[in-house]
Amino acid sequence: MKALWFDRELALREVPKPRPDAGEALIQVALAGLCDTDLQVLRGYSNFRGILGHEFVGRVVECERPEWLGKRVVGEINVACGACDWCRRGLGRHCPHRTVAGIVNRPGVFAEFVTLPLANLHEVPESIPDHAAVFAEPLAAAAEILEQMRLESGVAAAVLGDGKLGLLVAQVLRHAGAQETVVGKHGWKLDLARRWGLQTAEAKAAGLAPAGFAIVVEATGSPTGLEEALRLVQPRGPVVMKSTFREMAHFDTAQFVVNELTLLGSRCGNFAVALALLESGHIDVLPLISKTFPLEQGLEAFEYLRTNPCLKILLAPAPTPRG
Amino acid sequence: MKALWFDRELALREVPKPRPDAGEALIQVALAGLCDTDLQVLRGYSNFRGILGHEFVGRVVECERPEWLGKRVVGEINVACGACDWCRRGLGRHCPHRTVAGIVNRPGVFAEFVTLPLANLHEVPESIPDHAAVFAEPLAAAAEILEQMRLESGVAAAVLGDGKLGLLVAQVLRHAGAQETVVGKHGWKLDLARRWGLQTAEAKAAGLAPAGFAIVVEATGSPTGLEEALRLVQPRGPVVMKSTFREMAHFDTAQFVVNELTLLGSRCGNFAVALALLESGHIDVLPLISKTFPLEQGLEAFEYLRTNPCLKILLAPAPTPRG
Repeated sequence: MKALWFDRELALREVPKPRPDAGEALIQVALAGLCDTDLQVLRGYSNFRGILGHEFVGRVVECERPEWLGKRVVGEINVACGACDWCRRGLGRHCPHRTVAGIVNRPGVFAEFVTLPLANLHEVPESIPDHAAVFAEPLAAAAEILEQMRLESGVAAAVLGDGKLGLLVAQVLRHAGAQETVVGKHGWKLDLARRWGLQTAEAKAAGLAPAGFAIVVEATGSPTGLEEALRLVQPRGPVVMKSTFREMAHFDTAQFVVNELTLLGSRCGNFAVALALLESGHIDVLPLISKTFPLEQGLEAFEYLRTNPCLKILLAPAPTPRG
Repeated sequence: MKALWFDRELALREVPKPRPDAGEALIQVALAGLCDTDLQVLRGYSNFRGILGHEFVGRVVECERPEWLGKRVVGEINVACGACDWCRRGLGRHCPHRTVAGIVNRPGVFAEFVTLPLANLHEVPESIPDHAAVFAEPLAAAAEILEQMRLESGVAAAVLGDGKLGLLVAQVLRHAGAQETVVGKHGWKLDLARRWGLQTAEAKAAGLAPAGFAIVVEATGSPTGLEEALRLVQPRGPVVMKSTFREMAHFDTAQFVVNELTLLGSRCGNFAVALALLESGHIDVLPLISKTFPLEQGLEAFEYLRTNPCLKILLAPAPTPRG
């Protein structure tokens, strides 16, 4: 099968079609999404070698349990041992023995087929087209914030960063009751946020008043975002850290301690929650799609992502994604 | 009256005895404690000018409400407006209009007398001698951690830093049920911790295994402490940040986000809780006193703090502190 393989550089390769182990399914990938984490992997993050990619929707084509055959699925990317304390607590995504599709010691989804444990799969409801279902992973990550804190209705929240993740987070927090402001640098992305009825602000030094938000989510992907987030949040307020970057993040300890701020690292979330959000119709993901490339043009897709103003770039390994 | 006055440099000065405003008490200071924050103020933190110091125990000598006269008291150092949203929520220590004794726009306690609002005062129970009561402020700050998180009995906790605050935090968390380890660099301070039955570890690069603690408190006062704290805490675990320092703190975002760590800034606490802890007899503060200087030797006291291995240094403005 064809796959985008990373080994110091990214290349389209012909590789053996994987065979599902016991308890696993073979999934034919219908659509896959490019994520900023993929760009980081290309820069050396996690020392990954193999098939890249972790956002997908596909169809089960081989599996020892016949009830799964033909089902349209999305899949959690962390494959946990199932036996350690973390797994027993339902937090397999922190299992120290885990592999992570396309990121840590497990083939990813930029391929015609991928295998994943059945325990990782979620059937996609009929009403959600492939082009929306492929957002399950990043939307789950956005919704993870709601599992990490109690959000009071009407609370003033800001998302720093008008990228793919920031725009998902903003919609999720607004749907959960927050008075949501997207702070960004890109007029056309902020236009999109305004079309959804979100408030927006230009990310500028002299822009927003300090301590104006009860909750701030940092999703800029840049080291300066944290400083601004800590400036904008009220005393005792949480700043949710979604960004990862190669440089060290830095902050002023006096401000942090005196204002008793809370900084929360936030990563993957619950796919069932994401699918329910997509099914509800309250989260609008289709306008986030900038372009879809066939898998064979995967290298061009990455080049496009790097060099064009865009949001989500999709790859279509299979000929006809649904919807 | 005599006072230690800071205006670019610290000096013993003769200054007018303060007069209590309505709702305030005039307190004769019996003992005052030197804190690392005082050293930071001397380095320019908070741009403070005036009488330094914020840890004290004393006696009310003038007050419009006669029932307070002669009472032995400790006092909360944040003087809040009482009218803003923060004050109404009982979080006056985050009131944006607050003054802070010896730190922000309010005379401190390294003097013979100080005035504070009656609302800030706590009567010291008979059983607590002055030399213990003077620890109310830092002990309240240590106990603040228990207000910020739920501590499960038997949980593995580490305190990084074997200084004054670290040793108070370790005792408080142990008393609250944690399996407590003090990580420090000073043999004689770790000896003290062991005498209290605490576990100890030398702060060394190759020392403790990563992710070995459910809770880590950073009280080293040094930028490297945070990195070590984030290394030692389990995924999802909280790191409580007690240290402030002039340099920026820095951390690796990938580790922070992937492990979904929580960083909590933690500052002042509830004096009633601290007095109850002192009264319980479970927190041993007297061994933390390295030396007591008369107020007149305040400059020598600071010099001693800077140049000697020591823990708490006290100043005695009044001739005969109790106990």
